[in-house]
Amino acid sequence: MSFQNPVFIPGPTNMPEAVRQACYMPTIDHRSPTFGKILHPCLDGVRKVLKSDSAHIFIFPSTGTGGWETALTNTLSKGDKVLAARNGMFSHRWIDMCQRHGLDMQIVESPWGNGLPADHYEEILRADTGHKIKVVLATHNETATGVKSDIAAVRRALDAAGHPAMLFVDGVSSIASMDFRFDEWGVDVAVTGSQKGFMLPAGLAIVGFSDRAVAASKTAELPRTFFDIKDMQNGYNASAFPYTPPVGLMNGLKLSLDMLLSEGLENVFARHHRIAEGVRAAVRAWGLELCATSPDVYSDTVSAIRTPEGFNATDIVTHAADTFGVAFGVGLGEVAGRVFRIGHLGSLTDVMTLSGLGAAEMCMADLGLNIPLGSGVAAAQEYYRSHPSAALKSAA
Amino acid sequence: MSFQNPVFIPGPTNMPEAVRQACYMPTIDHRSPTFGKILHPCLDGVRKVLKSDSAHIFIFPSTGTGGWETALTNTLSKGDKVLAARNGMFSHRWIDMCQRHGLDMQIVESPWGNGLPADHYEEILRADTGHKIKVVLATHNETATGVKSDIAAVRRALDAAGHPAMLFVDGVSSIASMDFRFDEWGVDVAVTGSQKGFMLPAGLAIVGFSDRAVAASKTAELPRTFFDIKDMQNGYNASAFPYTPPVGLMNGLKLSLDMLLSEGLENVFARHHRIAEGVRAAVRAWGLELCATSPDVYSDTVSAIRTPEGFNATDIVTHAADTFGVAFGVGLGEVAGRVFRIGHLGSLTDVMTLSGLGAAEMCMADLGLNIPLGSGVAAAQEYYRSHPSAALKSAA
Amino acid sequence: MSFQNPVFIPGPTNMPEAVRQACYMPTIDHRSPTFGKILHPCLDGVRKVLKSDSAHIFIFPSTGTGGWETALTNTLSKGDKVLAARNGMFSHRWIDMCQRHGLDMQIVESPWGNGLPADHYEEILRADTGHKIKVVLATHNETATGVKSDIAAVRRALDAAGHPAMLFVDGVSSIASMDFRFDEWGVDVAVTGSQKGFMLPAGLAIVGFSDRAVAASKTAELPRTFFDIKDMQNGYNASAFPYTPPVGLMNGLKLSLDMLLSEGLENVFARHHRIAEGVRAAVRAWGLELCATSPDVYSDTVSAIRTPEGFNATDIVTHAADTFGVAFGVGLGEVAGRVFRIGHLGSLTDVMTLSGLGAAEMCMADLGLNIPLGSGVAAAQEYYRSHPSAALKSAA
Amino acid sequence: MSFQNPVFIPGPTNMPEAVRQACYMPTIDHRSPTFGKILHPCLDGVRKVLKSDSAHIFIFPSTGTGGWETALTNTLSKGDKVLAARNGMFSHRWIDMCQRHGLDMQIVESPWGNGLPADHYEEILRADTGHKIKVVLATHNETATGVKSDIAAVRRALDAAGHPAMLFVDGVSSIASMDFRFDEWGVDVAVTGSQKGFMLPAGLAIVGFSDRAVAASKTAELPRTFFDIKDMQNGYNASAFPYTPPVGLMNGLKLSLDMLLSEGLENVFARHHRIAEGVRAAVRAWGLELCATSPDVYSDTVSAIRTPEGFNATDIVTHAADTFGVAFGVGLGEVAGRVFRIGHLGSLTDVMTLSGLGAAEMCMADLGLNIPLGSGVAAAQEYYRSHPSAALKSAA
Repeated sequence: MSFQNPVFIPGPTNMPEAVRQACYMPTIDHRSPTFGKILHPCLDGVRKVLKSDSAHIFIFPSTGTGGWETALTNTLSKGDKVLAARNGMFSHRWIDMCQRHGLDMQIVESPWGNGLPADHYEEILRADTGHKIKVVLATHNETATGVKSDIAAVRRALDAAGHPAMLFVDGVSSIASMDFRFDEWGVDVAVTGSQKGFMLPAGLAIVGFSDRAVAASKTAELPRTFFDIKDMQNGYNASAFPYTPPVGLMNGLKLSLDMLLSEGLENVFARHHRIAEGVRAAVRAWGLELCATSPDVYSDTVSAIRTPEGFNATDIVTHAADTFGVAFGVGLGEVAGRVFRIGHLGSLTDVMTLSGLGAAEMCMADLGLNIPLGSGVAAAQEYYRSHPSAALKSAA
Repeated sequence: MSFQNPVFIPGPTNMPEAVRQACYMPTIDHRSPTFGKILHPCLDGVRKVLKSDSAHIFIFPSTGTGGWETALTNTLSKGDKVLAARNGMFSHRWIDMCQRHGLDMQIVESPWGNGLPADHYEEILRADTGHKIKVVLATHNETATGVKSDIAAVRRALDAAGHPAMLFVDGVSSIASMDFRFDEWGVDVAVTGSQKGFMLPAGLAIVGFSDRAVAASKTAELPRTFFDIKDMQNGYNASAFPYTPPVGLMNGLKLSLDMLLSEGLENVFARHHRIAEGVRAAVRAWGLELCATSPDVYSDTVSAIRTPEGFNATDIVTHAADTFGVAFGVGLGEVAGRVFRIGHLGSLTDVMTLSGLGAAEMCMADLGLNIPLGSGVAAAQEYYRSHPSAALKSAA
Repeated sequence: MSFQNPVFIPGPTNMPEAVRQACYMPTIDHRSPTFGKILHPCLDGVRKVLKSDSAHIFIFPSTGTGGWETALTNTLSKGDKVLAARNGMFSHRWIDMCQRHGLDMQIVESPWGNGLPADHYEEILRADTGHKIKVVLATHNETATGVKSDIAAVRRALDAAGHPAMLFVDGVSSIASMDFRFDEWGVDVAVTGSQKGFMLPAGLAIVGFSDRAVAASKTAELPRTFFDIKDMQNGYNASAFPYTPPVGLMNGLKLSLDMLLSEGLENVFARHHRIAEGVRAAVRAWGLELCATSPDVYSDTVSAIRTPEGFNATDIVTHAADTFGVAFGVGLGEVAGRVFRIGHLGSLTDVMTLSGLGAAEMCMADLGLNIPLGSGVAAAQEYYRSHPSAALKSAA
Repeated sequence: MSFQNPVFIPGPTNMPEAVRQACYMPTIDHRSPTFGKILHPCLDGVRKVLKSDSAHIFIFPSTGTGGWETALTNTLSKGDKVLAARNGMFSHRWIDMCQRHGLDMQIVESPWGNGLPADHYEEILRADTGHKIKVVLATHNETATGVKSDIAAVRRALDAAGHPAMLFVDGVSSIASMDFRFDEWGVDVAVTGSQKGFMLPAGLAIVGFSDRAVAASKTAELPRTFFDIKDMQNGYNASAFPYTPPVGLMNGLKLSLDMLLSEGLENVFARHHRIAEGVRAAVRAWGLELCATSPDVYSDTVSAIRTPEGFNATDIVTHAADTFGVAFGVGLGEVAGRVFRIGHLGSLTDVMTLSGLGAAEMCMADLGLNIPLGSGVAAAQEYYRSHPSAALKSAA
């Protein structure tokens, strides 16, 4: 039998059927005008999702990791100084990439489960009177810990310090699911991928550059070709790519953007918040705690749930896959074995979420945790009942 | 937003992705040998699902209703006598069809919620010493009431009465999900459709004829062309249809049969039984009762659940659709407004079932029924936990 | 290797990708309002394609043959008199169906290759002073011979004779590809299927009834249930079917209708005419003749091409399939072995047509016919070049 | 109307339906064992297509250009010397990439239309007594000119010179369509993509590394993260990727490899050669010449066709797209406006090819070139007739 359970990983997400079909188009000539009719709406739509009027949007056949590399190689030179906090696996990896590219890292170690330490950033930036720091990295949503950080606060730190460093934001697991304000927050590079809020298969790195970031590319000396934004921009100017574009995925992105924008971004964010609140109600009912240390950093796209001391959280994930055919996320890095993760972004309903919570309960009970069956489901049901979905109404 | 909840109607069922893709094939020439490579495995596979060595299988671009019409028009003449019990909407409709075709009906009215009255059949058959009754109709699984009848008992009644009438069985919502034994039960015509146990879209009437039933077609005078089995058999002999065949659906059927037979029919039946038992555990936990009056008639493909007096059960179905985007079945005919139905056949998992139960609970609570949230879910979880799925293990 | 040649059979046609995807939808609840949003646009769109303001449209999960049976069983009683001409395989089959249903046939034998003999009809109708003839059958486009008949002339014959018989038209291989005027021609029942002009898989019988034909159903005594238009109409009134509807195919039909109507029916017909003219230019260049005996009966959806005496035309079809993976149509009935057929309806372009003509040339050369390679292709190219496609321009 | 002509660009190619469906899979957990069942057959299959026993295969969510970058950044350090010939647009671009990465290029300018100058390479390598040259670049098939080069000859040049430089081969438009011998030719890095011989959408860079090339990665200092083969190898060892893998495309690759290997590589190559020979026969019949200067460098995947002096070859491509909805390739770089290209790789049949040739003839005639309609088609037909396809036979 082929089973059809939804996935509860923090991306790739469950895909809407229509988006999947749009990706699955027959071959067209990517040098024909037809491609331009896919490309330009993608660029315009992504810009809207970023809440930007002027960001330069670049789409690469790659992933979020490629998006990070695009950000760094187009703006920096070997030895340039970069400020970053490490509060989870993805901020860690981005720091690692910087180091491999010969950048001079100033790293703020921050507890996994906390948000970015904007105050500490401000201190460091004030101290950098020579403005050696060229770029501040900020991970908007730490997929590993389910922690959302306050990017506006990082911007305020920069401004308060009067520091000209550029602000690069990893929005891989936030953009298109949670509020993101490129212009208002003064973001210089925003990075995301196709397989999260855009509800597509993996395969696209999607990045936005400010004018300043584009200007920095004129002097940046890190070597690059595949991820070069100038080649890409020249391509776009001719409705083309500098190499063969991923036409089907972009056709899917075009439709996904249409869906998100016609639903309305605020509605999309509210929908994710509602689903997430149900999951958090379940976690409380289970008597467990989130990795995220306070409500202001709770992520609306993924919850990392701490299991009791001495219990291997990864067993839940393995048992769910083996016994119930359900996919949850394991803990990564510092929190490996100590959390399991429920992804609740993309094309997911309250009702589908109940099946994930129900599966988690069966697994925890099977593995000896003292979780009454149905307890988390009931808490989520109560939340969903008392907070009816606006989305369904508007779809009717 | 496009929502992707599973359906919980008693057919069409949720479809496996691969089956859906198989249906969705490009155009081929239906007069080419390629079609024979689809047709013959379908005929052979259906015969196996019927547990028959010798049944003549016919597949029409139609539905189960067309299958009934095939059964009648190919075997009977105006005025022929037919014995049938009415214990639900589908047995009722089949009787109505007989009457429209000028057949002389002897109808046994039987409570909706009960199985077929085999004892009563035997009495009538014994009394029919002149063997006027040509055919006995039997609905194996009443989709309207969630009641499974004992076809073997009907056969025993015929045999005990020494009556030569043919036995026609409506297996639309049982075949390929619940045990069906064409040869052992001495079935003369079995009728089903594509959209239930075969997990396909609606569009195929699938019928099996015994040698006797085929022989009867030589003298049957009811007019027929589209549903004529002789034309169809002549077509099959040339790997063709007497008209344009539904190639894509049959290609899907071929794959569905491969999946069912390689899983093993007994495993398929056990899988449905397990899912159904979880639903029934939930119903008990809710303090509600099934329409089916005793465990021996509980259907493994659909549960019709009685709601308290004075409550309109259809409100649950409407509310589930409007508020949660979930499809349940309404009550039909005599039990309209008094039951709602949860379909649990086709491509459905324990985990998906939890989401249906959870949705039903939210609806019942919203509508003022005193159903503790999570109670049915917990009962189903307990059942599923303690009865692990063999299917998933073997798929691994 | 999987080959991807277009098919050149006279239906099922090559399908547009988007239509195929629309058919391939996930399961929805066919009793939910969503189905009504598919059903009603289908009924309205078909009515427009028939150029009717008031036709009652019925869609069955069946084929054109089922559409014929719908026409007969809903309007006639055993022994009713029907006038029909036999000038090809499909008119022959319809006559055969009438006879099986006990109708009293007055048959005009007409040469295969000719159109319907409207003058002869008029004579017969004038002679039927008692108005015994209840229905006149007319096949608009004989798929077997590639002959289009003049339905307006049949209407004129009826009117000239002052005869009240109803006019039933088989438009299976004309409707949605060639001009059809339900209201203007005074058609009482029009019959078609999904797999021709609508570019869908086989599986839908699509019929239109005039008010008179609907009225006739009140007294018609031929038995019917599956094809009963009253049950169907009652269903439609509740946005439902009397049994499980073929939701996916109808979703495809909805899109197909959108495409046809937004292209414009006259443009659709012109497109088919252009493709057909290229094929006919090729046939002339080959020195061969059409089965259709004069230009006024040339079909724009299929060409039946006569091969020289002593040559088995079916060999071309077999050789094309075996050697080049290309599907043409064989001759049927009286013209079996004497013609092969090139279908040129549905989703087909000039360029795709060249590949069919090229394949036919290779086959004819291989089989010893004296056909210069490229000769027919060149003639078609010349036609297509000098008659540019309006369709492509408007798609740009 | 939606048109469905095949494409005749040199990639992305026409896709087999089954491969397209395989790409279009629902979301799975890429950290589950299911992914390993996709990944490892891909790695094994690609190795077989390369005719290698020991190549290390790496697959990136990227394109052929990313494959080049993988080759360079994993094996070289700034200032390293590289020998390359420029005989077309793709060799030109690879050289440009080297320069941007700070490599020291020794460039042999070679006429566009010629193959790689192996003799000249040998001379240069003999002269490089200090073995400063670390890598020799070789483009196996110049997609811009339709020129295939003799990689074995380059290997012989290296051996004859006793030079230890590594040999990197761009096989983007040859691998899986034309014979490629990684082991026999002593290739150190081979680069290709998904959208050519593998008949998939663009989106995968597929590379093979020899043990020596892997060893070189230990000291190579060019910065890299996304394209780092060590991270990738570590991922593969755990049946994972260092970031989110392009699961659907890889699922398609798995099927494509199954299809290619079960057809047999030599049969695949013969199939492409046969299609190409028909195209070349047409070009000769048109009185035109290929850009490729001699038969030993004719490419079996793409033909670049020179048009007469003073004629803008790009007009053919534009006219074909605008008037007939057919996609050919334009000339690039030095041969822009002087050639147009017919891609004949991937999922393409003889019969589909005729439609491309026919379209090209109509365009050339429309644009005033003196090309008799049907002339090239006839030449191709003659070739195809007299060289029957083995592929179709074996598919029967």
